[in-house]
Amino acid sequence: MSISMVEVAKRAGVSIATVSRVMNGKDGFSEKTRRKVEEVIAELGYQKNEMASSLKKNFSQSLGVIIPSVVTNYHGLIVEGIESKAQELGYSVLLSHSGENAEYFERSLQSLAERRVEGIIFVSIQPNAFQFDLLEKTGVAHIFISSESPTFDYPYIKIDDYQAAYDATTYLIQHGHQKIGIVGIDKKDAVAGIPRIKGYQQAMKDHQLGTKPDWVRNGDFGVEMGEVGANYLLTRYPDMTAIFGGSDEAAIGAIKACGKRGLRVPHDVSVSGFDDSMTALLSFPELTTIHQPLYQMGDLAVSEIINKCENASEITSQIVPYKLVERGSVAQKSK
Amino acid sequence: MSISMVEVAKRAGVSIATVSRVMNGKDGFSEKTRRKVEEVIAELGYQKNEMASSLKKNFSQSLGVIIPSVVTNYHGLIVEGIESKAQELGYSVLLSHSGENAEYFERSLQSLAERRVEGIIFVSIQPNAFQFDLLEKTGVAHIFISSESPTFDYPYIKIDDYQAAYDATTYLIQHGHQKIGIVGIDKKDAVAGIPRIKGYQQAMKDHQLGTKPDWVRNGDFGVEMGEVGANYLLTRYPDMTAIFGGSDEAAIGAIKACGKRGLRVPHDVSVSGFDDSMTALLSFPELTTIHQPLYQMGDLAVSEIINKCENASEITSQIVPYKLVERGSVAQKSK
Repeated sequence: MSISMVEVAKRAGVSIATVSRVMNGKDGFSEKTRRKVEEVIAELGYQKNEMASSLKKNFSQSLGVIIPSVVTNYHGLIVEGIESKAQELGYSVLLSHSGENAEYFERSLQSLAERRVEGIIFVSIQPNAFQFDLLEKTGVAHIFISSESPTFDYPYIKIDDYQAAYDATTYLIQHGHQKIGIVGIDKKDAVAGIPRIKGYQQAMKDHQLGTKPDWVRNGDFGVEMGEVGANYLLTRYPDMTAIFGGSDEAAIGAIKACGKRGLRVPHDVSVSGFDDSMTALLSFPELTTIHQPLYQMGDLAVSEIINKCENASEITSQIVPYKLVERGSVAQKSK
Repeated sequence: MSISMVEVAKRAGVSIATVSRVMNGKDGFSEKTRRKVEEVIAELGYQKNEMASSLKKNFSQSLGVIIPSVVTNYHGLIVEGIESKAQELGYSVLLSHSGENAEYFERSLQSLAERRVEGIIFVSIQPNAFQFDLLEKTGVAHIFISSESPTFDYPYIKIDDYQAAYDATTYLIQHGHQKIGIVGIDKKDAVAGIPRIKGYQQAMKDHQLGTKPDWVRNGDFGVEMGEVGANYLLTRYPDMTAIFGGSDEAAIGAIKACGKRGLRVPHDVSVSGFDDSMTALLSFPELTTIHQPLYQMGDLAVSEIINKCENASEITSQIVPYKLVERGSVAQKSK
């Protein structure tokens, strides 16, 4: 404990434990006490030299997060969940990008390992053999969100993408739709792509509905590829009445394609999404979509990592529940 | 320089300078060399003990970022700009939230100062006197994005919000609109609220158009308040033909309100936005909006901070250029 913390306690007329609690964002004191302590801290211009103490303790009270990008609402909610939980537990968050195609994966990993983070949370990243090996060699605790691997053994948090896509497709079928396409979905993505496509195909098959290979429109889950995919489908299959987006952005791309053709959603074409990020509330009509508990997934990842750090417990993989949220973009087939 | 870096260089058959360049993400070597060095690094499980060396050098090669929230596309783009530039220059980014109403400002600031970041970038935050004083006392270099203060002297990067709102309103007027409301705009926000409202009012006045006080609908810049505001206006003033959103989200809220009433955008009601975040491309029609160079503002903030750290140059405030982007949500008045 540094002499300064003693000084703060003395000047504020509170215990050292209280100063520590205030500074670490814990509770157990009145608002008045918090103000008083913070005023003294401000007055003294006091800074714990946390780097020195973390070096001594050999841990830095920080977590690393590697994401492909922060631009989408999907990642935003996960990062917010991570950041809020970390803050609650007194940890800082170091955010790093791997780039869309993980071209900076190694650099980001190296940088976080050098900073001795207690753990790294990977979001929507599937490492290759070289990358996974590098991660193992750092010895840093880790967990993956929205990822899993048949080859590498790492803990993850995700929903059951296959079953969720199966349910979303079944929901469209139950609304009378028989010709259903899927857009803005990466055919090579082992987590968010392939299982969702398989879930869609199986649901169609189980309801004795045929599909054609080109009803699955490859794309990067973005709004543009959703629009391109829907344009293809609506041109080639004018009697298609429902489109399933591989993400909320892809679904909104499909809605844009309908709008440009003068087709009304959901009257002429039903559209459903995937994720239930804030994006799902930005369209008119609002999206019927698969709700992933994104914020909670971030929160949970932090709990798992910190639990391992502080209690040496194992990090376990978890399949978290999704649900289908009914809003305005799907209707009973009308034509 | 640690002995391990020498070892890596030796094993990889390259110079120490090259190892350093590879590790710090700089260029000036072949892809083959990079691979080789990274393989050796992976093989040795090598980690620079950067915390120890940063302590020695008394700087940590990291930047702090404090934002209200990462959920919106607005902040996402800024953070991406910050992260990319920081990575390019070999700095890590520590991301922290102040909460929507800056209730965690002090905690976030304290945490970053303790970690001895080279500088802190504040995004869309206006500190109060206590908070600004605390910031000054940390002695950490800082710059604010989308903020400025008549009271406190801190460097900032922003657009001219007054003039941008003036131009956006003028654009609507030039399209024949005379009754124009403004929605989803925080009347108390000294940066993104008040100046934009004043710009709107001045443009109306300069074109001899009257306004009513309740044509300005207070809100938090979110989609919901945009919708609530537009609903009020379209109910109370059915002959209003244009709505100016305080953000892209607010504009999309207005489009949703129109949609629910069976009004077509832009045929019946024109809607314009503000920001040109990814959100502007999520609506049908896509938003005509004020483009803020969000990514570049993040990039520029990093350059300013690092320039100060490395060259002891002054951080200067900058008004960056905006532009009006014409898309599909505004049309010539038709009724």
